[in-house]
Amino acid sequence: MPQFSEFTPPRRMLMGPGPSDVHERVLQALARPTIGHLDPEFIRLMDEVKALQQYVMQTKNPQTFTVSAPGSAGMETCFVNLIEPGDKVIICINGVFGMRMLENVKRIGAQAIVVEDEWGTAVDPEKVATALKENPDAKALAFVHSETSTGVLSDAQTLAKLAQEQGCLTIVDTVTSLAGVPLKCDDWGLDAVYSGTQKCMSAPPGLSPVTFSAKAEAALKNRKTPVQSWFLDVNLLSGYWSGGKRAYHHTAPVNALYGWHESLRMVQEEGLENSWSRHAFHHQGLKAGLDALGLELMVDEGCRLPQLNLVRIPEGIDDGAFRNSLLNDHNLEIGAGLGKFAGQAWRIGLMGVSCDQHHVISCLSFMERALKAQGYNCDAGAGSNAAKAWYNAQ
Amino acid sequence: MPQFSEFTPPRRMLMGPGPSDVHERVLQALARPTIGHLDPEFIRLMDEVKALQQYVMQTKNPQTFTVSAPGSAGMETCFVNLIEPGDKVIICINGVFGMRMLENVKRIGAQAIVVEDEWGTAVDPEKVATALKENPDAKALAFVHSETSTGVLSDAQTLAKLAQEQGCLTIVDTVTSLAGVPLKCDDWGLDAVYSGTQKCMSAPPGLSPVTFSAKAEAALKNRKTPVQSWFLDVNLLSGYWSGGKRAYHHTAPVNALYGWHESLRMVQEEGLENSWSRHAFHHQGLKAGLDALGLELMVDEGCRLPQLNLVRIPEGIDDGAFRNSLLNDHNLEIGAGLGKFAGQAWRIGLMGVSCDQHHVISCLSFMERALKAQGYNCDAGAGSNAAKAWYNAQ
Repeated sequence: MPQFSEFTPPRRMLMGPGPSDVHERVLQALARPTIGHLDPEFIRLMDEVKALQQYVMQTKNPQTFTVSAPGSAGMETCFVNLIEPGDKVIICINGVFGMRMLENVKRIGAQAIVVEDEWGTAVDPEKVATALKENPDAKALAFVHSETSTGVLSDAQTLAKLAQEQGCLTIVDTVTSLAGVPLKCDDWGLDAVYSGTQKCMSAPPGLSPVTFSAKAEAALKNRKTPVQSWFLDVNLLSGYWSGGKRAYHHTAPVNALYGWHESLRMVQEEGLENSWSRHAFHHQGLKAGLDALGLELMVDEGCRLPQLNLVRIPEGIDDGAFRNSLLNDHNLEIGAGLGKFAGQAWRIGLMGVSCDQHHVISCLSFMERALKAQGYNCDAGAGSNAAKAWYNAQ
Repeated sequence: MPQFSEFTPPRRMLMGPGPSDVHERVLQALARPTIGHLDPEFIRLMDEVKALQQYVMQTKNPQTFTVSAPGSAGMETCFVNLIEPGDKVIICINGVFGMRMLENVKRIGAQAIVVEDEWGTAVDPEKVATALKENPDAKALAFVHSETSTGVLSDAQTLAKLAQEQGCLTIVDTVTSLAGVPLKCDDWGLDAVYSGTQKCMSAPPGLSPVTFSAKAEAALKNRKTPVQSWFLDVNLLSGYWSGGKRAYHHTAPVNALYGWHESLRMVQEEGLENSWSRHAFHHQGLKAGLDALGLELMVDEGCRLPQLNLVRIPEGIDDGAFRNSLLNDHNLEIGAGLGKFAGQAWRIGLMGVSCDQHHVISCLSFMERALKAQGYNCDAGAGSNAAKAWYNAQ
């Protein structure tokens, strides 16, 4: 075996579906000296993380914590704690992450009622209302607030209201929502909500913030079967994240939580509403440039996520060659299409630290060059000039 | 909510059951710029991590990867992938982590045959042989190589041989073993092996290296039921960690893997055998000092882990006050007793970066001061002087 060299990552500009660029302050926080996972100073950090997560998730739920694994594990935490074998769950599918929810439900041995919508469109509240009416015994309604695979925002407030009218729990994927679009867990009455750290929060991937409402906690307490995962059992996790004397469950990822704390602090400094507006604002700048380049946003304006833009690949353009050129010639990462959109679309993220004027203009310039290299026809500087003009007009 | 300050952790000396001190090189690696989890450069890093893990685990298994979550999730990965509902598993319990294995088996709905040994003693091969004979239909034998709760080493080679004679798989916890005591996955024929990063490897907690033998892979392929965890399903994980075109499964913890890569590189530089000897060597230095302080190692020499020392709390000494004094007055963390040893013992770790002469001498000095503050009777400098003398004699 060779002696491997130190790994020096290239300095990318991350404008895909996440991870987004991570601020130097967060990177530096990761590198602080490791302390014990039961050190009183670390417990204090966890308490601050919990308070800050309650703020960014807009909730007062005491059962708010960080799962020591990425968003997919946050999803699994919500499902395995609330759903038991035989339970009926309504799953809304309008992209990859709805499908992943279905996988979770199947593996629990629960019964899934699927409500499907076209990829690239929002979850239809009418269909959900019908499914709820037809399944009055459904224990939970599960849906994705911001579909990372398509760049679609669904109306979480309306969907949750429908579920509440029937006394049905909600399980909500907000991985790409957090700090990017309004998310109000308590006002909307969401029950089990998970998110990710590497999208609009701009921390590295690896953790999943989760919150459970009082109703979700009650459902957990009333289970008839043990939670199938020991690692994700919230009964055990809460002994480590809450209360007076903290009980050892697993060893928390100490340094990752340093970074997460700093990223949460930065959102607190900016103000959550300001973060939401910033994402909406720069999306308009990007859109002005894409329009000028003749590129089409595939999601209708009414349900379009500002922080994740699904762009149709123009005819005659080679997807792989285009993204390789961005990455290798310009250190710019944008996302490939996922699932049904593979080869059909790009996903341009404007998330967290990657959501500013500099990223928008650079992205448009580099895209123009890579398009032209494939014979695409547009005026010199069309995209970036249009975006600059848009910014100047604000 | 207050505006929280930047978190500045105290500079501890970590001599508990893990995490151990993390080297500056590893901390700095964590802080390198984040890149995408499908970036070709990141895939290259993953390939190096895999090769290095094969080296430290002494295996050529192609199915070698890092679970994106701590050791407990590594344990769960092995159980949920290999064990199906109704399967029979022999579980050896001689401490906390054997009990956790039992929890895993129960939550799968499999049948556990428990082989118990006293806490603080090794797994008895005779009992295991009997259990295997009585249960010729057992699918797996599961045991802990290095029990972190008691500081006991069991004879993995002998136990695995017994299992092999019967065509039974082995699931082996090596969380505290890796780089601390000899572990030879291929030579010993271990089938599903998980470890941790924060013990003798001295990376921060949060990841779990795992390896599956060809026999374990075959068992996974021959399952009749889906793996109950989507996040930990090795069928899916292997599409991300192996082969030509890597398929997105979950978003890997990019920066944590930078750190892990650097920590693996450091063990490669030192040489695995040298790391094993270093742990054995400094254990002798610590032991010389503890003897001189009149403190008793509770585990018999024949099965004592050099890297985790179970020390009986002398009569009249207040456990909490003692450890608080070490932490608050000297920034030294040692471990409390766990489970049956709570209040009865301390666990002094000599792991990874924390395993050197400086740590040994400082620990003995600080322990002496904290003991004397509670009226303990010993000569001034007894422990540290004895250790120094031992070192000088080498």
